[in-house]
This record gives sequence, structure tokens and C-alpha cells, in this order.
Amino acid sequence: MSAYLAEFIGTMVLIMFGNGLLAGLTLNKSLSQGANWVVVTFGWGFAVMIGIYVAGAYSGAHLNPAVTIALAVGGSFSWAAVVPYIIAQIAGAFVGASIIILHYYPHFKATPQEIDTHGIFSTGPAIRNTPFNLISEIIATFAFIFGLLMIGENSFTNGLNPLILGFLVVAIGMSFGPTTGYAINPARDLGPRLAYFLLPVPNKSGSDWRYAWIPIVGPIIGGLLAIGLFNILL
Amino acid sequence: MSAYLAEFIGTMVLIMFGNGLLAGLTLNKSLSQGANWVVVTFGWGFAVMIGIYVAGAYSGAHLNPAVTIALAVGGSFSWAAVVPYIIAQIAGAFVGASIIILHYYPHFKATPQEIDTHGIFSTGPAIRNTPFNLISEIIATFAFIFGLLMIGENSFTNGLNPLILGFLVVAIGMSFGPTTGYAINPARDLGPRLAYFLLPVPNKSGSDWRYAWIPIVGPIIGGLLAIGLFNILL
Amino acid sequence: MSAYLAEFIGTMVLIMFGNGLLAGLTLNKSLSQGANWVVVTFGWGFAVMIGIYVAGAYSGAHLNPAVTIALAVGGSFSWAAVVPYIIAQIAGAFVGASIIILHYYPHFKATPQEIDTHGIFSTGPAIRNTPFNLISEIIATFAFIFGLLMIGENSFTNGLNPLILGFLVVAIGMSFGPTTGYAINPARDLGPRLAYFLLPVPNKSGSDWRYAWIPIVGPIIGGLLAIGLFNILL
Amino acid sequence: MSAYLAEFIGTMVLIMFGNGLLAGLTLNKSLSQGANWVVVTFGWGFAVMIGIYVAGAYSGAHLNPAVTIALAVGGSFSWAAVVPYIIAQIAGAFVGASIIILHYYPHFKATPQEIDTHGIFSTGPAIRNTPFNLISEIIATFAFIFGLLMIGENSFTNGLNPLILGFLVVAIGMSFGPTTGYAINPARDLGPRLAYFLLPVPNKSGSDWRYAWIPIVGPIIGGLLAIGLFNILL
Repeated sequence: MSAYLAEFIGTMVLIMFGNGLLAGLTLNKSLSQGANWVVVTFGWGFAVMIGIYVAGAYSGAHLNPAVTIALAVGGSFSWAAVVPYIIAQIAGAFVGASIIILHYYPHFKATPQEIDTHGIFSTGPAIRNTPFNLISEIIATFAFIFGLLMIGENSFTNGLNPLILGFLVVAIGMSFGPTTGYAINPARDLGPRLAYFLLPVPNKSGSDWRYAWIPIVGPIIGGLLAIGLFNILL
Repeated sequence: MSAYLAEFIGTMVLIMFGNGLLAGLTLNKSLSQGANWVVVTFGWGFAVMIGIYVAGAYSGAHLNPAVTIALAVGGSFSWAAVVPYIIAQIAGAFVGASIIILHYYPHFKATPQEIDTHGIFSTGPAIRNTPFNLISEIIATFAFIFGLLMIGENSFTNGLNPLILGFLVVAIGMSFGPTTGYAINPARDLGPRLAYFLLPVPNKSGSDWRYAWIPIVGPIIGGLLAIGLFNILL
Repeated sequence: MSAYLAEFIGTMVLIMFGNGLLAGLTLNKSLSQGANWVVVTFGWGFAVMIGIYVAGAYSGAHLNPAVTIALAVGGSFSWAAVVPYIIAQIAGAFVGASIIILHYYPHFKATPQEIDTHGIFSTGPAIRNTPFNLISEIIATFAFIFGLLMIGENSFTNGLNPLILGFLVVAIGMSFGPTTGYAINPARDLGPRLAYFLLPVPNKSGSDWRYAWIPIVGPIIGGLLAIGLFNILL
Repeated sequence: MSAYLAEFIGTMVLIMFGNGLLAGLTLNKSLSQGANWVVVTFGWGFAVMIGIYVAGAYSGAHLNPAVTIALAVGGSFSWAAVVPYIIAQIAGAFVGASIIILHYYPHFKATPQEIDTHGIFSTGPAIRNTPFNLISEIIATFAFIFGLLMIGENSFTNGLNPLILGFLVVAIGMSFGPTTGYAINPARDLGPRLAYFLLPVPNKSGSDWRYAWIPIVGPIIGGLLAIGLFNILL
């Protein structure tokens, strides 16, 4: 499996799991409708864990343009592969979101338009405030990528690194997610936002495009701060 | 312990745990009645983990006809053992379900017939829709078996693989379970459905036999798609 | 540290954690009052994990007379050490419970006698039915000790066995606990029952001594069935 | 990275995660407002896990003056480094808390002063009772540091020790936290209390300084009891 294909498949799997759990929480007649924050945070954590197990050996499992850019800036990843990686990640996220639309199709039909379903696919702020929403995504992604780099540096976990990184993502969700829904990954937000916008989802609401740049720009800045601090420290 | 006996015992243990937790959530006067989706998903995940620890060294711990068939089609499992494996799995599931009927017997007596208890044993759709229910089981099982194959390929976890596979099942439940209750395993559904149908469960309701083919056919198709993609990629 | 001291300290730690979490869930003004079944089951699982880490290297970390007797009957533990082990376990459980009475003392004072607090320390049936309560404890302990023996047989987890056994106990609680509160350990039930009975707990209720033999006899029978099946299979 | 810098960064990360999750649970319009005790306890456990991964290789990851003092008294840590370690820990905790004020700034503005937000940063008793609050912190910290020492002694977890210690902290929270909010760490309490007191937090309430000595003195005593028992036993 080529690295590009691995990024595509890994991000597809990540988003299938991540959007699937939010669909379950949001849609009418779903068995998990209204399930709590524990499900959100552990569900996304395991989604990341599984995505890493899928792609790890073939692409390093970035699955996230903020990681790819940070590693390229930090010098441990080739600039030539950055754009193809990012395209593969966004395309994989798009396909993952599409599979969830299919999986939950009757539940979308059973959910009236008053219930805003775009949050299943893309993030949005709990309080709309451009500078602070951007700051939140910067801080959350800084914590995620700095944690990821330090865990990589310090562990000898023989195949269990993906589990630890999954729990890191659980913790990111619990601690930094409640403000903007913790995109911490431009592909995780943009790919599914496009899928929701373009595909015939029953009873869909708007895609909130004016917010869409924040979960792209914020995570990239946060990742750069993380690799910067990491390189200063070590 | 022979491989066939291991499949029997391992699936029995899997279903004891899995059906036991749903009995606790459903039945009157149970200490966990009404417990949330976290208990369902982690409970089934740990059930799979324990089943794999029980059978792993002796049979490879398929515990699931969809896994057995996928591995046979993929060429890594002998066709001659497929039917005996599947019989052992269904028989083990039947016995596991029977033990749970015994364990919770006074609680079945305390639960009126209006509470449908067949869902403790076999799955059913949140929205009855034959093509989409089948698609849901196909997607959920594809995600499960593709994840399982990739984890096996990429990890060096020295005895902790069953834990990771357990968390994979937690994630399957959170992300793909809310539509049809994630059978993802024909034996997990058919064996307990038979036990509920045949055994003298107090205040029992119908067994919904017309749905029973979906959690058999869907997981088998999903498993074939997973092994197919896996063989194309690697 | 001698093996007997290790059993005493390990069981003390197990019960400090296990009774402490139930005190938090039960007592007035506690920050976790009313917390859900997830806290009960994970809390007891981690209690067992920590108890095993404390005693593992020194005594094998039985922490449970049903384990000690099963291993002696199975031939892998000396009969001469059985009685001292059991005494150490019950004494450790007594001291662990006493520490929890101290830790939560103002909360016991703030809890009126109508709230039955003996369930913090010892188990009781959700539906009182002597044969089925006994059967429940037998099945739950069978599942626990059979799982424990198979995990020990099949894993090479380099120091993470206690984590897996902790998750096994989480699963036992979720799947078999809702009927009788899953003592699965005579010392876990008898030591704290004695502490509650003998010590000056504010606003205490009765100790339900007529039930006390079931969480002693049931787990011993369940452990014997587990070692019996294990020896037949392997 | 020097050991002092590692203690600063590690404690900063610990408090970013730990205070962040409590901000999410407490503040208006947060996506996790009102989330349950599972989130509190797992969130703090993962916070400790991540802090240890960050600092482990460089400073031993004390992140806690009670650990530093206990190890110095126990003879395995140099007295000369005790004061600089503690200063680094408190300063790191202060900065971590400050980042959370920034992260959640609009949510602080949206939360009226009647909701007491100082509990996001520093602990307080569920029932105010000086001797028993002190006893609670002593017992909780004893259990934490004794567990930590025994896990260190008995495990061979190849880089997964931080995960196990994280779960130890989850268990401390579940079992000993419900009385005083389990500071178990003077820096975790004092640094954020100072940040909340000094920085311009919108709608802030009092800092409850008269309680502030208990989460300093209690954990130190608890740590000394733990190292004392550990040295007697081993």
C-alpha cells in the first residue's frame, strides 16, 4: 500500500468512525441518540486509534494536514509529499463522511430539518467569536500535536502507541473540545463539510461555510507552535 | 483444547458477557437497569476481548462465522474447518445465552411482557428498512473486520492484541451500532435468538424471525468486502 | 514483603478503592453522589488492578479466598498457605473498609438512616431469592476465575496483566453484577461487612447477616467450577 | 530539556488538561457542561498520563511537590533539587491554568457570577470540616503515592507505565475524590488558585484562601506515609 493510499484509507476510516458516532448521537430513532460526552470523546479517540493502526506502517498515519505541515516544517517530512498527503486526507475524509450518510440514511429521513445535522460532519463554535474560536483551535491542536510528539519521543510501546494516541485524543476532547468541537485537523473538518454540502443528505441544513476557515487555519498554527516548542526543547 | 472446542467455549464466554450486560440494562430491578450507551459499548468490547483471550491460542479466536468465512475466502484458513467452526460458534452462543437466562431468571419473572426482552439476545433495527438494515450490517462488519485485519498486520503488541480488538468493538458499537444494534456476527445473533425462542424464558415476547437473515447475510458480505479490500491493498 | 503481608496489604488497597467509590456514590453531599454504573464497574476494575500491582510480585495477588481455594484444589498452590492467606485477605478487607469509614466520616453523618449504607461495604441481592442469588454468585465467579486463568495462560503482557484483569472485572460487573452486586470474593464481602457491623459508623443500618453466607459459598463453588473446567480443557 | 524545564512543561500540560475539563463541565454554553463524574475522573487520569509522557524521560515526571518530597525523604531524590522542582511545578501549574482562562474566555463571560468558577482551578471540600478534609487529602495522597511506588516496583511495562499511572489517578478520583476534590498535589491546587486570584477572569468569585493550606499539607503528609510504608515493606 502506497503512503498516499494509506493516508486516504486511514483518514476514511477515521472519519467513518468519528462522524458515525456523532450521527448516532444526533439523529432521531438512533439507539444512541442523546448519548453523553463520554461517548463523543472516547468514540473520537478510538477513531484515531483505528485510523493509525490502518495507516501507521505505510504512511506514518498523519491523517491530518496540521500534522503533515508541522512535520515538514520541523524537517522530518519531505515537502514534496505535503500536497499529495493533504489531498489524500481530504479525499479520504470526504469518502468516510459519505459512507456515514449511507449508513444512517433512514435516520436522516426521520430527523426534521429543525435539528441541525451539519454538526455531525463539521465543527462549529459553542459561542461564535472569531478570535477566540481561532485561539481555541490553536490551543487544542498545540496540545494534541505537542503531546503526540512527546509521546513519540518517550515511549517504547511496541505497537501500543496508537492506543496511547487515542487516549490523548480522548483527553483533548474532554479538556479542549467543549468550545469549538475540537477539529484539530483541517481534513477532518473540510472533507465532511464538503460531503454534507454536495451530497443529497435528507433534511439537511446549512454548512456554515463562513466558519470553515477557522478549523483549517487554527490547527495549522497550533501544529506549528507545537513543533516549534518541541524543537526548542529537544 | 481443540480448535473446535475453543471456538465453542470462546463464543460461549463472549455471549455470556454480551447478553448479560444487555439483560442488566433491560430487566426490572436489575442494578444496572437503564444504564447508558457507554455500558453497552464497553461491555461488548470487553466481552470480545475476554472471548479472544479464552480461545486465541487454540483456534485463533474467530468466534464469528463472518470472520471464519472471510479468512477462508482470503486463503488463510482451511475450507474444511469452516462448517465445524461455524457450528461450534453457534452452539457456544446458544449455551452462553442459556446461562444468562439462568443468571437473570428472577429478573425475567419481574419484567412484564410489555418490555420486549428479545433484544437482550438478538439484534433488531431501530428503523425497519430491509435494504438499509442490510447495508448497515455490511458497513459495520466491513469496518470491524477490516480494522481487525489491519491491526493484526501492524501491531506487535505481545499479548495485548485482544485489548485493542476489544476497543475496536467498543468503537464499532459507538459509531456503527446505533442503527441495527451491530450484530457484525451471525453466531452472536442466531445462537441467542434460538435460545430465546426455544427455552422457557418467563414473559418472553416474539423472536422476530423475519429479521433474522439480515444479521447473518450482512456480516458475511461485510467480511468479504473487508478481506477483498485488504487483499487488494496489501 | 512476605506473601501473607502482601495479601493483607493488597486486599486492603482493593477494598479501600472499591468501598470508597461506593461510598462516594451513596453518601449525601459527596461530589459523585448518584454517579452511574460506569463508575461502579470501572472503579472496581481499577481497584483490582491496583491491588494486583501492589501484591503481585510477593504473593501472586490472590486477594480472594475463592482464588486461593481454586488454585489449591487445582494443585498450583500449597494447601498449607490457604488458611493464612484467607485470614490475611479478610483482615486486609476489614482494614480497607475502616479507612473508608474514616475518609467519608462527615458524609456518613450527613446521610440519614433511611439511606441504607451497608451496601457500600457488603453486597446484597436486587431480588432476594436464595437459590438464584447463589447461582448468580456461582456464575459470576466462574466467569471471573475462568477468565483469569485463561488470560494467565494466553498472554505475554510484560507487566500489563493487572490492567487486563482489571478490565475483566469491569466486564464481570457490567454483565454479571446487576443481580447480586458481584461479590465474587468472600473476603471482599465478609471483611467490610464485619467492619460496618463492629465499627461506630454514623447512622448505620443493619448488616443483613442472613445473606452473608451466599457471597462466601457462591464464589467458592464458582471458583471450583472454573478450575475444574480449566483442568479438563488444558 | 533540563529536569527543571521538564517539570515546568509537564505540570503546565497536566494542568491545561485538568483545568480545561473542569472548565468545560462548569461554564455556560460549553459543549460538555454538566458532563458526569466519568469525564472528571478519566479526564484527570489522562491529564496525568500525558504530563508523564511529556516530562518522564527528562525529570522523572514528579509534577507534584508531594511526590518530590516523598522521594527526597525516601532517599531516591536529591534534596538540592527539591526547591527548584517545586518552584517549576507551581509555575507550570500557574501557566497551565492561565492558558485555560484564555481558551474558555468567552465562556467565562457567559457564566454569571452566581456560578462559582474557582472550583475549575482549585479544590474545595464537599463538607467543610478541617480535620476530616485534611484526613481525606492524606488518605487520597497516601493511596496515590503508595500505588505509584508499587506499580513502579512491579511492572515491566515498556513505556506504558504512564497509562497505568493515569488509570491509578482515575481510580483515586472515583474512590477518594468525592470528599475534597482530590488535590493530591500541592502544585495542582496552589498554582491554579494563584492564577485565578491574580488574573482578570470574568465574573470570578473568591479564591477560598483559608482552605488553601489543606491541599498543600495533606498531600505532603500522605506522601510521607506512603514512602514510609513502602520503605518498611520493601
